[in-house]
Amino acid sequence: MDNNSNDKIFGRNAVLEALTANRRIDRLYLQDGLRGGDIAKIKALAAERKISFTFIPRAKLDELSGGGAHQGVAALVGAYEYSTVEEILDYAEKKGEPPFIVIAENLSDPHNLGSIIRTVNACGAHGVIIPKNRSVSVNSTVAKTSAGASEYTRVARVTNIARTVDFLKERGIWVVGTDLSAKQYHFECDLSGAVAVVIGSESDGISRLTREKCDFLVKIPMLGETQSLNASVAAGVILYEITRRRISG
Amino acid sequence: MDNNSNDKIFGRNAVLEALTANRRIDRLYLQDGLRGGDIAKIKALAAERKISFTFIPRAKLDELSGGGAHQGVAALVGAYEYSTVEEILDYAEKKGEPPFIVIAENLSDPHNLGSIIRTVNACGAHGVIIPKNRSVSVNSTVAKTSAGASEYTRVARVTNIARTVDFLKERGIWVVGTDLSAKQYHFECDLSGAVAVVIGSESDGISRLTREKCDFLVKIPMLGETQSLNASVAAGVILYEITRRRISG
Repeated sequence: MDNNSNDKIFGRNAVLEALTANRRIDRLYLQDGLRGGDIAKIKALAAERKISFTFIPRAKLDELSGGGAHQGVAALVGAYEYSTVEEILDYAEKKGEPPFIVIAENLSDPHNLGSIIRTVNACGAHGVIIPKNRSVSVNSTVAKTSAGASEYTRVARVTNIARTVDFLKERGIWVVGTDLSAKQYHFECDLSGAVAVVIGSESDGISRLTREKCDFLVKIPMLGETQSLNASVAAGVILYEITRRRISG
Repeated sequence: MDNNSNDKIFGRNAVLEALTANRRIDRLYLQDGLRGGDIAKIKALAAERKISFTFIPRAKLDELSGGGAHQGVAALVGAYEYSTVEEILDYAEKKGEPPFIVIAENLSDPHNLGSIIRTVNACGAHGVIIPKNRSVSVNSTVAKTSAGASEYTRVARVTNIARTVDFLKERGIWVVGTDLSAKQYHFECDLSGAVAVVIGSESDGISRLTREKCDFLVKIPMLGETQSLNASVAAGVILYEITRRRISG
């Protein structure tokens, strides 16, 4: 685990998940005059964990969240705790499941990374690997877009994706890349065993080096005029095809 | 078709698609000093269609796009031309395919609608139906997030979704809703014929009335801590399961 400086999160779901997931919370801010279901739940959980909260004006919250949609709630939290690749593999082993991992290579849009983390959590995959450089990190926008899933989902940062791919292959994991040049559709390839799916960057797809290291390349059918899907939608389509096979057996 | 007042679009893909799709363009703005591949292509297409363009400072473009990512390009265009439900059905018939439609009920986030339109186009579905009220319309953010697919994809606006569902059912189309309360997974239900998929709002899912009118309800497996997927990811997962069955036969 590597720790950075403090981080802030905002939005009701993101703060609720941080409270439930027992993440370290240094300060909790609520908007003056707000009450009702979610706010009451946040106050109760904060009281339970002995975290004090402060009511502040809406304008202060706007400033704190940099104009983002805070829904009247923000928190200063301990830095996001990244996992290691080994911890992701250990987690799969503990669950008695063949590893099911996403490698998100060089994503630049935090909404895409957040949405992918949410999908990874939902479909029962074991974690996400991102590069330390040339990728958005797990910041407050990612946490919010993940609807809190970043609190529960293992995300590892590595210095070298190509070396990580080699490592995963040595551990018996099939590495599959999504690429427009692929010959087969994603549902024509048997992805039911230990698998890592590489999702490329929004603008350039998978890097050449990583593509060459993949065991398989697959493509999603593109039957209209548009050339590609949004990166988080593409990830969802492939991850749930894998989940379908895992469930159907 | 119903026409509204003028609209603006920005971003290279969105403008390129508007040019190629022969959409009415009243004014085209390029950022001072920009050149290179996309810009040259835009200039060539504009010249071909006898559309004049103006170079303006970056600050003006920032203002025009309301702070959105314009990538140095913006255009004032004719209002988005909505289709009718009949036109969507005619298009399916012309292609000799059983109708494959998405009903996006009460989406509030333009990024979700844009991403869904992009997926609808990519997976070979015939169109999207949205309600006139209580839904984001096809505005410039939707056009940009759709990566231009809104230019090619039929989107119909209806006053009453429940009545439209009745109409589709009378035409022999199975209406399937996505709902957490469903008993079966989306891949356990045979969706290979004429089908309309209802996607609910981000916060509340499908409305009670529409849910009761659906022929089937399906759910996407939620195997982790998170309770739901992003609306556009959920749509992608279900639409591509239908596409998989249509392709695999």
